[in-house]
Amino acid sequence: MDYQAESLKKHYEWKGKIEVVTRCPVEDSVDLSLAYTPGVAKPCLEIQKDINKSYELTRRSNLVAVITDGSAVLGLGNIGPEAGMPVMEGKCALFKKFGDVDAIPLCIRSNDVDTIVNTVAMIAGSFGGINLEDISAPRCFEIERRLKEICDIPVFHDDQHGTAVCCAAAIINACRLTGRKISDIRLVVNGAGAAAIAVTKLLITLGVRDVIMCEKFGVICEGDDRLNSEQAYMATITNREHRTGTLGDVIKGADVFFGLSAPNVLTAEMVSSMAEGAMVFAMANPVPEIMPDVAKAAGAAVVGTGRSDYPNQINNVLAFPGIFRGALDVRASDINDEMKMAAAYAIANIIEDSELSEEYIIPSPLDKRVVERVSKAVAEAAVKSGVARI
Amino acid sequence: MDYQAESLKKHYEWKGKIEVVTRCPVEDSVDLSLAYTPGVAKPCLEIQKDINKSYELTRRSNLVAVITDGSAVLGLGNIGPEAGMPVMEGKCALFKKFGDVDAIPLCIRSNDVDTIVNTVAMIAGSFGGINLEDISAPRCFEIERRLKEICDIPVFHDDQHGTAVCCAAAIINACRLTGRKISDIRLVVNGAGAAAIAVTKLLITLGVRDVIMCEKFGVICEGDDRLNSEQAYMATITNREHRTGTLGDVIKGADVFFGLSAPNVLTAEMVSSMAEGAMVFAMANPVPEIMPDVAKAAGAAVVGTGRSDYPNQINNVLAFPGIFRGALDVRASDINDEMKMAAAYAIANIIEDSELSEEYIIPSPLDKRVVERVSKAVAEAAVKSGVARI
Repeated sequence: MDYQAESLKKHYEWKGKIEVVTRCPVEDSVDLSLAYTPGVAKPCLEIQKDINKSYELTRRSNLVAVITDGSAVLGLGNIGPEAGMPVMEGKCALFKKFGDVDAIPLCIRSNDVDTIVNTVAMIAGSFGGINLEDISAPRCFEIERRLKEICDIPVFHDDQHGTAVCCAAAIINACRLTGRKISDIRLVVNGAGAAAIAVTKLLITLGVRDVIMCEKFGVICEGDDRLNSEQAYMATITNREHRTGTLGDVIKGADVFFGLSAPNVLTAEMVSSMAEGAMVFAMANPVPEIMPDVAKAAGAAVVGTGRSDYPNQINNVLAFPGIFRGALDVRASDINDEMKMAAAYAIANIIEDSELSEEYIIPSPLDKRVVERVSKAVAEAAVKSGVARI
Repeated sequence: MDYQAESLKKHYEWKGKIEVVTRCPVEDSVDLSLAYTPGVAKPCLEIQKDINKSYELTRRSNLVAVITDGSAVLGLGNIGPEAGMPVMEGKCALFKKFGDVDAIPLCIRSNDVDTIVNTVAMIAGSFGGINLEDISAPRCFEIERRLKEICDIPVFHDDQHGTAVCCAAAIINACRLTGRKISDIRLVVNGAGAAAIAVTKLLITLGVRDVIMCEKFGVICEGDDRLNSEQAYMATITNREHRTGTLGDVIKGADVFFGLSAPNVLTAEMVSSMAEGAMVFAMANPVPEIMPDVAKAAGAAVVGTGRSDYPNQINNVLAFPGIFRGALDVRASDINDEMKMAAAYAIANIIEDSELSEEYIIPSPLDKRVVERVSKAVAEAAVKSGVARI
């Protein structure tokens, strides 16, 4: 199927992928008096007395804003806020279908960090959570950090943290399958954008000790003046041997290649130079860093991609619906590392030891069990880590 | 029924009066590929090429933001943004039920004019229209004026203009019933807040020539230094005889009293001093400027209020769903005077000459014919006045 052409046709038919419907009866004058004036004055006054009642008396407890400035939409670059909306609506449709989360897309007509932060902060009282989407690096780091400081609701940049959770789940299970401990693997991450940095950080939190990141210009090493501020920070917690050179140099002997970079940058020769039972995750989309059959032929024991037409598709829909469902269920004030780790293990543990295979290290995005397990684990982690508010 | 107590109970049951649902299938991997990646790239790129396609390829064409800062909610005053949300959600429920308009409530955590204008302007690309709600005067005038300048979509402050349209419809029909021409009536408007000023302006646009406004301190007259800037402007287009004094002075001989003010400020004696066949509209809620039976006993031929338990209830739900429905249907860039006048006449003309009576000058808010007639008239007026874009 030509997905692009068919999708366009469907979008003209759908006239929007989400819709707002009414949950209360509005049929007669008594209904009107209860849902609206004069009765509605009472719930208003209850919230005025105790602002937390907004979670019980309005939809806030189930409502998430999906926010973009259209600056890094899919692989399309800065296509503008309105042009990003089909992706945001799609995300909202997935939020509802998978997590029963009500999500509203909002595009912001500015790429300015202050403006985006101020706009989101001003409307945060309408929502139970904020999902940032397709905002380009390095602005996305500052926007997220500042909003997390200002807002009393979870702020989550899915391109970073949703990706990190799913990738972590895949690596957890690839280690299970190949009999390695996470703390023992030698990991090379290719790419040093927002997603790659978030994946690397979460894996370090999960116990990975030996990790080297690479950019187009080569290995990320402390002191290199070509690094942006986030990359410079990553250089202080990765590559402790201060290695330099290229991907081809550092991939030798590595257990795991994790690419969030560009098509065809990993060669069969590089894979052959990796350790026995190597794990290759080639997440560039639609054309991965190496095609799965090429990687396998070169000796990779496990291969994962972002594509639905190969085994082991690593898809964010495994994470964000359950993460927000769990956070909303306990009225969490944040989505923290403990919750992200819990989500990663919940996704990984869907697969029993007996089911685990080189073609099945990550559940299907359509597996109905995922959201329930993830949301439960996330809610428990929120309670344990002290960010739950009910 | 104790509407307040019952409404609170219902709000706890409803857990929100609106909900976001999915309009596209998301059941299998083909669905995901069409509604989301990779297919969704195509509608994104189409919008990037032609921003108007956002009306065809996303929900924007049917989506309105209901925006408040919580500064003038019902008669409750400045109760804050979160506390205003039950009213906003109620409004959204009515938008959907009456107009099939998808509406999203957004509360803004600031009372600052610049901040509200900037916040709304930044997210305007997500919507087909903006409904401002329960924002206190005089800030609401500047906020609306500036947003109308900045935004390429309709910006409509319902407390002003929705009220004005419904009140105009009532006066049009009261004139029909009592055999007067609109251009001949002597009108006294009591109250000089946002709604009263909007009603007065629309009635002047509709042809009323003799109108005097009163505030608590007395008749609004050019040169009075107690007037705020909007009232000072109104003083230049009303009260051309430069009368001074009190409501009791100017009500003598008037054909119409229109109160948007405070309980019990119109006495039976004042009504008795009005012209034969006087029309009294006492819109203060829940306790009107005069009770209908008292006004009738004092000689009023027609009485209208905002209450559902008396005849001639003037309720904004008669106007805003059809006005936005009509504006969205032709992708209007504005809701202008021509569209408001068309809406007022459409509401008035629902009632046939043979049906018109002193107890039936305005249709029921539940009359299903209203939204259809109003939306059609508004869309036609948008086309004629050059603000339609399809």
